[in-house]
Amino acid sequence: MPKLFLNPIGIIRTPHKEPKGTPIQPPAAKGAKGTIEVFEEFVDGLKDLDGFSHITLLFHFHLSPGPLLQVAPFMDTAVHGVFATRAPRRPNPIGLSTVRLAGIDRNILHIEEVDIVDGSPLLDIKPYVPRFDLRDNVRTGWLAARVERLDTTRDDGRFAQ
Amino acid sequence: MPKLFLNPIGIIRTPHKEPKGTPIQPPAAKGAKGTIEVFEEFVDGLKDLDGFSHITLLFHFHLSPGPLLQVAPFMDTAVHGVFATRAPRRPNPIGLSTVRLAGIDRNILHIEEVDIVDGSPLLDIKPYVPRFDLRDNVRTGWLAARVERLDTTRDDGRFAQ
Repeated sequence: MPKLFLNPIGIIRTPHKEPKGTPIQPPAAKGAKGTIEVFEEFVDGLKDLDGFSHITLLFHFHLSPGPLLQVAPFMDTAVHGVFATRAPRRPNPIGLSTVRLAGIDRNILHIEEVDIVDGSPLLDIKPYVPRFDLRDNVRTGWLAARVERLDTTRDDGRFAQ
Repeated sequence: MPKLFLNPIGIIRTPHKEPKGTPIQPPAAKGAKGTIEVFEEFVDGLKDLDGFSHITLLFHFHLSPGPLLQVAPFMDTAVHGVFATRAPRRPNPIGLSTVRLAGIDRNILHIEEVDIVDGSPLLDIKPYVPRFDLRDNVRTGWLAARVERLDTTRDDGRFAQ
């Protein structure tokens, strides 16, 4: 099965200058504003994106030192399979965050509720559409008993080296 | 900015043998069941995934003949920037679908509500967590007036050429 080669389409600028201290999901990142510089060659792809209040970003976890198949994630002390977590040390180090889109100035996107480390290479932008993305009757496994820790937990740097 | 090289972690098997006729999002794919074969070397990463009822899959749009920056998506006749759509002909051809996880037999995941073409290379699995992924007060731009077409619209093959 062939490898897939990806080229970043932009760069994400945020107040989070290193993994340590970064909010671990967008709902824990109230007040954290950033910008995305979309590279010139991709600007035509932004047409009509300004009608959407939220966008899902796919980005490169560029500071991940490599994959681990089992990890103790930020909100737990137990070890889980990396695919049962959102930890960055994934076999394919792609991050997924849905952020608020506050406005667009040509190739600059103004975003809010940002949990992404400054300088992360952007791979894709998708419009967030509840009719596509929302699910009911959800079970969340080990996270169900831990998710209350979201607002008080920050990245402690454990996956950056 | 460096390229990112990705290796598939598995392969997605579905009843949708070609793009034409495939449901265009999981909520339009009721009754469509599939399986994922996770390659042996990644099986340890699945620990505790069985506690989650829904998983978000990132996969390679492997049948995309190449990027288009503006497209007329399935549910509209007007042209939009590709980043304001979910169309497969993206600069980085990565698909995102949240599907039901019905069960796991070691390296085989049984999935439901699948809108993915058979044979798609799997890049990542993330647990779906409403506290992380749900947003309120959402505006959906051009899609707001079109989304009612979701259940009656199928892929018509336009992006596979």
